[in-house]
Amino acid sequence: MSGLGRLIGVGVGPGDPDLLTLKAVRAMQSADVVAHFAKAGNASNARAIVRQFLRPGVAELPLLYPITTERPAGDPEYRSAIQGFFDAAATTVAAHLDAGRTVAVLSEGDPLFFGSYMHLHVRLMKHYPTDVIPGVTAMSGCWSAAGLPIAQGDDVLTVLPGTLGEEELVRRFQRNEPTVVMKIGRNLSKVRRALIAANRLHSATYVERGTMNDERMMSLVDKPDDAAPYFAIVLVAGRAWHP
Amino acid sequence: MSGLGRLIGVGVGPGDPDLLTLKAVRAMQSADVVAHFAKAGNASNARAIVRQFLRPGVAELPLLYPITTERPAGDPEYRSAIQGFFDAAATTVAAHLDAGRTVAVLSEGDPLFFGSYMHLHVRLMKHYPTDVIPGVTAMSGCWSAAGLPIAQGDDVLTVLPGTLGEEELVRRFQRNEPTVVMKIGRNLSKVRRALIAANRLHSATYVERGTMNDERMMSLVDKPDDAAPYFAIVLVAGRAWHP
Repeated sequence: MSGLGRLIGVGVGPGDPDLLTLKAVRAMQSADVVAHFAKAGNASNARAIVRQFLRPGVAELPLLYPITTERPAGDPEYRSAIQGFFDAAATTVAAHLDAGRTVAVLSEGDPLFFGSYMHLHVRLMKHYPTDVIPGVTAMSGCWSAAGLPIAQGDDVLTVLPGTLGEEELVRRFQRNEPTVVMKIGRNLSKVRRALIAANRLHSATYVERGTMNDERMMSLVDKPDDAAPYFAIVLVAGRAWHP
Repeated sequence: MSGLGRLIGVGVGPGDPDLLTLKAVRAMQSADVVAHFAKAGNASNARAIVRQFLRPGVAELPLLYPITTERPAGDPEYRSAIQGFFDAAATTVAAHLDAGRTVAVLSEGDPLFFGSYMHLHVRLMKHYPTDVIPGVTAMSGCWSAAGLPIAQGDDVLTVLPGTLGEEELVRRFQRNEPTVVMKIGRNLSKVRRALIAANRLHSATYVERGTMNDERMMSLVDKPDDAAPYFAIVLVAGRAWHP
């Protein structure tokens, strides 16, 4: 594979630029091209996190999602549009790799944990040398900001998206295990109803933009409304604490 | 709380020293005391990860577990011994905090995710100013080293300890969801049997000492024996990949 550039998935962590790893900073600063995903018309969140570390004049490659409204992942029209987008993004990145350029793809949190980078990874990993630099996940950032020990000993931790149906959420919450609910956004009223039905509302903490400057958090029972950004997280504590 | 020292839980990541965050390095270098857990008679894994970053001459506080053999968390004798250990460790740390010293407690991976730091945190957080610096988890290090996208879209990720009973493991694996099995150690033959029973052995990747110099990984089906260190991880992929 000599002559080919290297593809590097770079986890940039949950939001606080100081939560980048040494390895991520180095990879970004030595890359020929820094790529980042964003919704069309929006700035990239990942780029905003790393802005201060970008090498002046480095080539940037914005990869702009064609779809700005969240749709269920099972929707065929969505699936087709998003597959076409990732195919085209992979082709664009591949042209740089073919020219021998190292491409660092920024990824909020951890690249292979619900990250867009993975869609480039699976398309390109067989053809190009590839590295993945893990990052601090958004959920780690949130439970650390809240000072909430999420799992210990023989606990089973479940991480689920707020996009699941209400009955399934109730069933999962009823297990009384520590649970992280991602992708809150417009799903908060449903998540709240499911927590009430499972009798776990009082174990739930709401964290919005964890580790960022405008971080907000509160017990979910104290949150007076169900307005929430997509990147909010609800942490549901498990059994009572013991060492 | 003026005059009191600050307690800082510092996530040091999965093993590669370059996977420390900028914030973790800074906290360690400005702390008056650096504390680390180890089994009696062993060196601390967390300290080994950060060795090159320790300020020369910094005061170190080793916290030595009294028990060197893994026992089930429910065992009353174990519970009592380990509670006494964490009580004593908290008292030792508190003496430094009372004297106005900042104490950084090293934690492999992320401090509040199956980490020993949490037991100091819950004992001291009400009495002292406390910060938690999240870290890259061992599981992120492992799936990144393996180049394995672990969760995407509407996936539900389960993280469970290999210490669970075999029937429960089978039941969990049968859900066909992406699953991370921690604490492999002496549980590998049981985990393997459960994966076979759930018809998921071929989706399982074994990773030992992920991101460290002596990292090893292979498809579990290709691993000829069931010998494994405690910190090995098994990654069980979920449904087939699609964008």
